[in-house]
Amino acid sequence: MIGSLLPGGLATPATLVFADRLDRNLAGMAAFAAGAGMALRPHAKTHKCLQIARRQMALGARGLSVATVGEAEIMAGGTGRAGPEVDDIFIAYPLWPTADLLARLGELAGRVRVTVGTDSAAAAAQLAPLAGRVRVMVEVDCGLGRSGVRPADAAGVARAARQAGLEVSGVFTFPGHSYRPGAAGAAAADEAAALAEAAAALAAAGFENPERSGGSTPSARLARSGAVSELRPGVYALNDAQQVELGIARMDEVALVVAATVVSRPAPGRIVLDAGSKVLGPDRPTWASGHGRLADWPAARITGLWEHHAVVAVDGDPPELGGVVAVIPNHVCTAVNLVPELLVTDQGRVVDRWPVAARAANR
Amino acid sequence: MIGSLLPGGLATPATLVFADRLDRNLAGMAAFAAGAGMALRPHAKTHKCLQIARRQMALGARGLSVATVGEAEIMAGGTGRAGPEVDDIFIAYPLWPTADLLARLGELAGRVRVTVGTDSAAAAAQLAPLAGRVRVMVEVDCGLGRSGVRPADAAGVARAARQAGLEVSGVFTFPGHSYRPGAAGAAAADEAAALAEAAAALAAAGFENPERSGGSTPSARLARSGAVSELRPGVYALNDAQQVELGIARMDEVALVVAATVVSRPAPGRIVLDAGSKVLGPDRPTWASGHGRLADWPAARITGLWEHHAVVAVDGDPPELGGVVAVIPNHVCTAVNLVPELLVTDQGRVVDRWPVAARAANR
Repeated sequence: MIGSLLPGGLATPATLVFADRLDRNLAGMAAFAAGAGMALRPHAKTHKCLQIARRQMALGARGLSVATVGEAEIMAGGTGRAGPEVDDIFIAYPLWPTADLLARLGELAGRVRVTVGTDSAAAAAQLAPLAGRVRVMVEVDCGLGRSGVRPADAAGVARAARQAGLEVSGVFTFPGHSYRPGAAGAAAADEAAALAEAAAALAAAGFENPERSGGSTPSARLARSGAVSELRPGVYALNDAQQVELGIARMDEVALVVAATVVSRPAPGRIVLDAGSKVLGPDRPTWASGHGRLADWPAARITGLWEHHAVVAVDGDPPELGGVVAVIPNHVCTAVNLVPELLVTDQGRVVDRWPVAARAANR
Repeated sequence: MIGSLLPGGLATPATLVFADRLDRNLAGMAAFAAGAGMALRPHAKTHKCLQIARRQMALGARGLSVATVGEAEIMAGGTGRAGPEVDDIFIAYPLWPTADLLARLGELAGRVRVTVGTDSAAAAAQLAPLAGRVRVMVEVDCGLGRSGVRPADAAGVARAARQAGLEVSGVFTFPGHSYRPGAAGAAAADEAAALAEAAAALAAAGFENPERSGGSTPSARLARSGAVSELRPGVYALNDAQQVELGIARMDEVALVVAATVVSRPAPGRIVLDAGSKVLGPDRPTWASGHGRLADWPAARITGLWEHHAVVAVDGDPPELGGVVAVIPNHVCTAVNLVPELLVTDQGRVVDRWPVAARAANR
């Protein structure tokens, strides 16, 4: 029962991190990447915490991935303090380089090693003022249908970056179509094929030994060693109900829960919790069984979610009115972003509070 | 074109409020309630801003509705400053009264008039330490299937509150099943029937002239004057894509947008914006046409949403790479909660910045 690990007297809803589970998750992925001969560059958008970033670096991560310049600035703020520095950051996003972003990237590049994503010749050309200071990775689409050029078109973008005076490090992709039951294997195959094709196109255009960066949490352990040189998973650090329902993580590998109070038992088999979409996050993929899971009631389902109410269908012996239960959010990245700090718990006690330093760093 | 109203040189994504539209929305609902002979108690969970709360009070609102004690504490912090005071707050939620919450409610009741919701005799009994200091409203379920007792059971909860020494003001319900296309009329009828039945039960048990509080934005203007004495809509202040797609608000009544930059045009008919679920909110009801709407491209649809990417299907003349567009979130309450401040714009200029004072006040 995870309930026995919840600190007593908590004001709810409260977002908790189990430090021992976090450490096991971090060590497990680090060991996998090392064993597979791939560099690990964890995505910090999941946790947004310097404390977790430093743990990842201490376990041998090459650097961090982030989604925005703002996240990069905050993660770079971890340098120079006690513990390993975050000195190498990849903004794995096709930035549109406005004057404001160029100025901020220039400042950032004076502090840490910076690599930025791009998926168009137009954006690459606008990065020219940063020549010699930041590196570029070309984004390719391996089947998700989001951003990124077709693998065959990667060389054209790389040439535009080279013409603008920028060093091109390689190519990257996000196999996010791994987020469906049973889809991770095919997504990993797509990832390998797209990275291989794009890297070959770059090599043919004179770019030597291009980096091939991929990885999502569902597909990370299926990544092909020959085709993928760097992995960028994020969610694995904390896990969530999506990973449990995809079969990627066990319940006891979920390191973040929201402690919630049973505020209402309006009908038999139905309870209402004070954790709603403003703390769990409203994410609900079509294949999910509900809006999150209850750690100690695996058969229960969150059938309705409003801003401050989770309606739970639970048979048998439901939690009592006023009781506190542990809820696993569907998507941990959006849940973390909703709170100012994470309560770090160990053996049923709150032992630390970690600020969500990069919360809402959306630009 | 709303695009012409966007301030130039914005760092995106940026959450903007059009002050003139906000004021029109506030005045419209105030006039409706006054004309229908109902008290208006707007729900502050939508905007979480003292500046908007004061405008609502200045337009004749009886007080505010909130969802949590934390929201109440922050809204009460608006008293004593320039402008009308927020001196009457209803926590329209079935609180489970822990020792911590009782202490905070006691302190709050020393500053403003406080009413709390309850939907069980057990919770009502635990409110006893607040006898003489807070009032109670009994929650009934009018068909949403969330919290609240059946209307016939309201009197039992009211008696428990009376036995605990508390004043019972009346009954309340949330007709949230109005949030489906074409459902608002039936939800308003359910609301009227449930409030009438519950109020009659209270009257029969000796509670005189019970308040009957209802209201959601889709159903508010359909509320029955005889059955509903108080309205608690929230979203109407700002509106959102849900209200547009339900036919409740026109596009030009949407007072909050997220300015976003086109960062990628990876394929014909597809663009990618830098506004993702961490600024728009991930809410997507099954009946919605997508993950939000583009104000100036009514035929465009947001077909995919990730944390920092919105993928938009747009035919004809799509916005150009690097262009800035106005995105209407699906659910404004969760979008507001994602940012520290709202940029108030008028005539294409940012004229003020309003802190989201009650952001993440989930407990």
